[in-house]
Amino acid sequence: MKAILLVAHGSRRPESNAEVVALAEQLREDASVKAEIIHAAFLDMAQPTIPEGIDACVREGASSITLLPYFLNSGRHVIRDIPAIVAQTMQRHPCVSLRIGPHLGESGLMKELLVRMIEALPDA
Amino acid sequence: MKAILLVAHGSRRPESNAEVVALAEQLREDASVKAEIIHAAFLDMAQPTIPEGIDACVREGASSITLLPYFLNSGRHVIRDIPAIVAQTMQRHPCVSLRIGPHLGESGLMKELLVRMIEALPDA
Repeated sequence: MKAILLVAHGSRRPESNAEVVALAEQLREDASVKAEIIHAAFLDMAQPTIPEGIDACVREGASSITLLPYFLNSGRHVIRDIPAIVAQTMQRHPCVSLRIGPHLGESGLMKELLVRMIEALPDA
Repeated sequence: MKAILLVAHGSRRPESNAEVVALAEQLREDASVKAEIIHAAFLDMAQPTIPEGIDACVREGASSITLLPYFLNSGRHVIRDIPAIVAQTMQRHPCVSLRIGPHLGESGLMKELLVRMIEALPDA
């Protein structure tokens, strides 16, 4: 079974973390997403942590897990912190394929999303 | 003339800030964006700052400026810091209409973008 783990930074504001969990739920309800297991996890300041999120996916039967970093920029969290946590957690799950997908900001669709947001603005 | 100011957090990594500036450039080159002036600005750790970005738009002839917070979550930067800076900067430009648009994460298109990113993943 395939799993997607949406990994966000995590915030002191519970509302902010709830937005990420809600987004993971929306993905879960979307029939076009070909993944049986979808969860959110947080790098810092909120739970589940990344190892907890990975463990949950494994517990539910995931054989391959793709982490999607919900980050806009290729900062140190994306290029260093998340890979380090994943490398460490992989040792616990030798039979599960674990990989990190592109981070959100890397998507070529980001410009398109902004264009559509600007189009939807009411007249200034 | 209408201006869009794409406002990101700002990072210690110049590459990360350059990604935001490049995105603003892509928007500028997109004929479907109905704004004559488009710039990027940073809340912290990089330049131009938000007041500098607003000043640049005014200098180039903007009569209305829409700030688009390039933030995923409605954290304190979006709900407190950016509005406070904008309120202060507005006093310098009484004849310019200045408003804050929705932040990126608020877009209903975000789920769609993630769905398309997941679809584009190579097989695990």
